[in-house]
Formats: sequence, structure tokens, C-alpha cells
Amino acid sequence: MGLHRVVEPAGVLPQAAWRLDADPRIASNEVRIRVERLNLDAASFRQLSDKHGGDGEKVRAEVLEIISTRGKMQNPVTGSGGMLIGTVEEAGKRSPLGLKQGDRVATLVSLTLTPLMILDGLSRWDGRSEQVPCDGYAILFARSIAAVLPADLHPELSLAVLDVCGAPALTARVVAEQVDRRRRGGDARPVRVAVIGGAGKSGSLSLAAARRAGAARTVGVVPVTGERDALVAAGLADEVALADARDPVGLSTAVTTALGAPADVTVVCVDVPGCEHGAILATEDGGTVIFFSMATSFAAAALGAEGLAADVTMLVGNGYAPGHADLALELLRAEPGVRRLFEARLAAD
Amino acid sequence: MGLHRVVEPAGVLPQAAWRLDADPRIASNEVRIRVERLNLDAASFRQLSDKHGGDGEKVRAEVLEIISTRGKMQNPVTGSGGMLIGTVEEAGKRSPLGLKQGDRVATLVSLTLTPLMILDGLSRWDGRSEQVPCDGYAILFARSIAAVLPADLHPELSLAVLDVCGAPALTARVVAEQVDRRRRGGDARPVRVAVIGGAGKSGSLSLAAARRAGAARTVGVVPVTGERDALVAAGLADEVALADARDPVGLSTAVTTALGAPADVTVVCVDVPGCEHGAILATEDGGTVIFFSMATSFAAAALGAEGLAADVTMLVGNGYAPGHADLALELLRAEPGVRRLFEARLAAD
Repeated sequence: MGLHRVVEPAGVLPQAAWRLDADPRIASNEVRIRVERLNLDAASFRQLSDKHGGDGEKVRAEVLEIISTRGKMQNPVTGSGGMLIGTVEEAGKRSPLGLKQGDRVATLVSLTLTPLMILDGLSRWDGRSEQVPCDGYAILFARSIAAVLPADLHPELSLAVLDVCGAPALTARVVAEQVDRRRRGGDARPVRVAVIGGAGKSGSLSLAAARRAGAARTVGVVPVTGERDALVAAGLADEVALADARDPVGLSTAVTTALGAPADVTVVCVDVPGCEHGAILATEDGGTVIFFSMATSFAAAALGAEGLAADVTMLVGNGYAPGHADLALELLRAEPGVRRLFEARLAAD
Repeated sequence: MGLHRVVEPAGVLPQAAWRLDADPRIASNEVRIRVERLNLDAASFRQLSDKHGGDGEKVRAEVLEIISTRGKMQNPVTGSGGMLIGTVEEAGKRSPLGLKQGDRVATLVSLTLTPLMILDGLSRWDGRSEQVPCDGYAILFARSIAAVLPADLHPELSLAVLDVCGAPALTARVVAEQVDRRRRGGDARPVRVAVIGGAGKSGSLSLAAARRAGAARTVGVVPVTGERDALVAAGLADEVALADARDPVGLSTAVTTALGAPADVTVVCVDVPGCEHGAILATEDGGTVIFFSMATSFAAAALGAEGLAADVTMLVGNGYAPGHADLALELLRAEPGVRRLFEARLAAD
């Protein structure tokens, strides 16, 4: 778990640590990666960019400062990190990850717990995109997870998919359970799914996963007409609705209108604060809300459901599930609509 | 939902609002309560007390300032509130709550969304306890929930139970589902439950609820020997273990040792930050963690599970479930151990 890399405070796990030891010399169960690119978490990049009014130079300086101070990339405000790609430079003899020198990999654990050292001052990054080309080192622990990048996909495309691969995995599981529960109970009602932020990375994959898991009716909610048109063209949702996710009444009205009833499963994939109440209001009694956004406030969700007397199950989106990387890459390959959305997003970056 | 009471920012629900309108004149679907006592959320009181080094006078002044500025009691740091008891002074003709003038009630929705005005400057409160005697007004909306206080229990005892009644309700549901799933799958393994903070209010009720829902083996984890002795005497758990919940390895070792395996369901009831990783580590793959503490960090939970490659379901503790008040009061009446812990806690306040 990398406890020996924790500098302060003592005793916590690397993700909770203020500072990690990013010494490039590895222990026998560790792996050192030569990093070529970081992919900052969307909530983190947005916070930094907003703070500096979009001044890329200042964003770059702050990211460098965070990494050199903390020994890892963890935004102190959002608490979130991101992921990286690179090449295995040295694998310890006792590492259980099955990686060998020269493998090109993406890390599936967060940057918030990955010791990291930057060697080029991020000189090739303009501070205006979540994608950060760089040169540096990172360390993987025995319990870290990394995926060897598939040969049939562009590395940036794989990275973008792997970054959010926990979302379709958990969505598929929750929808399948709901379908199964209805079937067992002799309940013929269709399972309805709403994905808030349906045109984004985790959103489009979650829509595809929900349909495949047996959702009878799906809606993707987006904030602007450009995303609406793109999601309609992608054909991933039965309905596409326009709404501001921060407006609780507007959001729940849009979902209920599109589905003909509140959603049985609502998946929140938008990286802006304040979407908890709308998601709860948009969900049927007995239904489930899955929060994937790192901008989610635990207290707003807990107290919001209580304040609305809403009998909904609320899940913290876990970035890990067995087989999550393979499922997400498979969805990308099988669903042209997903692939088009991802490629358009990468082209715009 | 009380949207008309939101002063700023416009369009959000009352819980998310910075400021509410606490005008004592009610709309036809509202109810005005004459408040006699507030019960501050434990995380909120702890934050205020720590901030002011235990100086009750300063704590009192800050609570007064929060209520007069915001029109509600919502700690700006923790985001949490608490609840209140009082007497119905006026019930609007169209209120669906079924309350009438003179009913002595406890609110089951959070103070964070309840318009509140204090009339006595909190002069009877010393700022050293979560229980705040006071005189003032509060407003209930159509969708608020309030319970008429039972005649057979002391009001303070009822209030303390109702304050946390969402915890045993959700614990019972999750444990029963796990038991049912094992039975359907022909899996004979016993369902194991760990309650972190098992001697506290929500913790002791959750232990009793878990056992009643079919948990075969339970452990209550507590931080100090005084609580250990009290919980052993209460007889609510099969095992009682001492551990600091902020120490991930220590906590998971204590749980696994006591239960003979990691927990299938882990319930977090301690109001201190930094318990997410220990709870995740203490939980079996395929198991569930329920976070009831308002000190829970969404990002720490989400990224912690990912970083540990832990296949656990993580639930945001919803303060509402149908029948939650009756279930909790029934547990108090039926379980002498629960009652003793509650009465000892009230006596110590």
C-alpha cells in the first residue's frame, strides 16, 4: 500500500498524506515509470483554471509547486488528482503487477497516491488543458493498478477511457441489479436511467453501459445545445434533455419529462458543485443515485436527501471494480457513438 | 420544498442556500414551531468547540451569529446543522404534516434547511454542549418531516434518538439485503458487521439494528477504554475492539481480528475526519461501507477505494428512510443496552 512512502503525517495511507517521498530508487515490490503525460482530474483542472482566471502560466506554476511540495499531484482544494501514462523503466523483483521494462502503461490509481517527480519543469505544457505532456518519474506500489495500453488504440484515447473506467463498471452493476430485482419481484416496469452530463467521458460510457445492462429507457442530460446535438448524433440515449444540473427543479423536470417518470438510477457525471439536490429530486423513491463527480459534497447529498424526505440510495462512485478497464475499452470499441464523442473531445483539447 | 424562503442564491433548495428568510408569518402550507431546544450536529459542535479552544462564550456567540446571518443553523465549515424540539404554534390550513397547535414535536429534517430565529440570545446556553436550550421560532415546509414526541419517553431522550434515526434504518436494510443475497446464492457464510464508533448514538442503534436484521457476528469499535467498558456492558455487539479509526491499518486489523475476517458491512459513525481509508480496508471485497459521519470526505472515500483497488460499495448515509423514527424508538424501548448508553450520554452532557 506504499506506507513507507508517506512522509507526513505518519500512519495514514498515501492518498491521505500531505507529502510523499518520491525517491526514484524503488523497493523490491515497486515499479518505476518514466512519465510522458499526466491527465489532470477535470474538477482539479477547472478549480486551478478558475482560480487563475484562465492564465495558463500561473496554472502551470501552481501544478509544479504542488508536485514539488507534496511529492504527488493532488489539488489541495478539490482533493483530486488524475492519472498518467508512461513506460516501465524498472520493475522490482517482487512486484505483483506483472509489468516489465518497456511496457507502455496507464495508471488506474489516482495521482493523489502516486509518488511523482517532474524533471522538465512542465515546459511543454501551456496550462490550458487537462492533458499535461511532461518528463518525470512515478512509483507504483504492489497494490496499485496499471493497464498496458492496447495496441489497437491511440494512447491518448486509451488514457481518456481508462481515466473514467470505474463509471461504466459501477453503472452496469447497479442497473443490472435493479433489472434483476424487478424481475424477481414480478415487477414489469421498465428500468429508467438518467445520466447527468451524458455527453462527457464518464457520461457517454455510462449511458452505453446502462443500455447494455438492461435499462429500458435512458436519458442523457447536457447543459448546452452543442453537447445536445453531439449526444443525439451519437445515438447513445433514448432521449437527450437540456438542463442546468445545478437547478434542482429544472433538472428533475427535464428528467421526469424525458423518461415519463423519475429515474430508477441517476448517474452524476458533471464536474461542477451543487448537483446533489437535482439528482436526488430526479430519482424515483427506492431508486439509486451514483455520484461520480469529485465536486460532490458529502454533506449536501446526505442532508439534501433527508431534507427532501427522499428514500434514495446514494453511492460514492468507486473508481475501481474488477474488470473495469476491459469493460470500458470494449464499450469504446463496440459503440461508434462513444468513440466519436471521445475523439471529438480529444481533438478539441 | 420551501423554495420561496430562499433569499440567496436564488433557485437552490433551502439546504444549499446561503441565507433563508425566517419571517415568522407562515404560508398556508407551512407550520411555525416555538422552539425550546436545538440539538447541534456532533461534527458541527466539535468543529466550533475546537476552533474556540473550548471557550463556551465564543462558541455561543458564533452560533448566534450564524443563525442571525443565515436565517438557519448551518455550520459553514462542516455544512451540517442538527435538529430541534418545540411546540406547534400555528399550522397552516394546507400543511400536509398532520400537526396541530400544541403538539410537542421534534423535527426530522436538518436545521440546515429550517428557517430559524432566536429570541433570547441563547442566554441559557453555556456553549459547552450540543444541547442548546433556547427560545425562538422555526418554520416547517410541506415536505419537512416532524415527529410528535412519544408520551412514554423523556423529550431529550426522544430527541437524541430521532436525531440519528436514519442510521439504524439504513443499516438494517443493507444487512438484510446482504443476508438475503447470501441465502439466494446458497452461500452459507455468516454476515459480519463492524460499527465504527459503536458506543455512540448512531453506533449503538446501528449495532442493535444489524443484529436484528440477521447479522451473525458484530463488532463495535471504540477509541477509549471507557467506551469499551460501556459497550461491553450494554451487550449490543459480539465483540468490542479498541482502535483509532483514523489509523487505517490499526482499524482494519482490529476489525478483522474481532470478526475472524473483514466485515461484509462496515458502518462509520464517528464524527472525526479521516476514517474513510480504515473503513474501506476493514471491509471484505464485495462488501458495503455506510458513511454516516458528516465529517466524511467524498473525495477521500472515492479515491481511497480506487487507490486500494477495493471492490466495495460505498453509501452516503441518508438521514431519511420510511419508518425510520418508529424503528429507532422501538429499538430504544426493546434494547436495554441501547437505552443505558443513551441515558448515560445525556447525563454526562
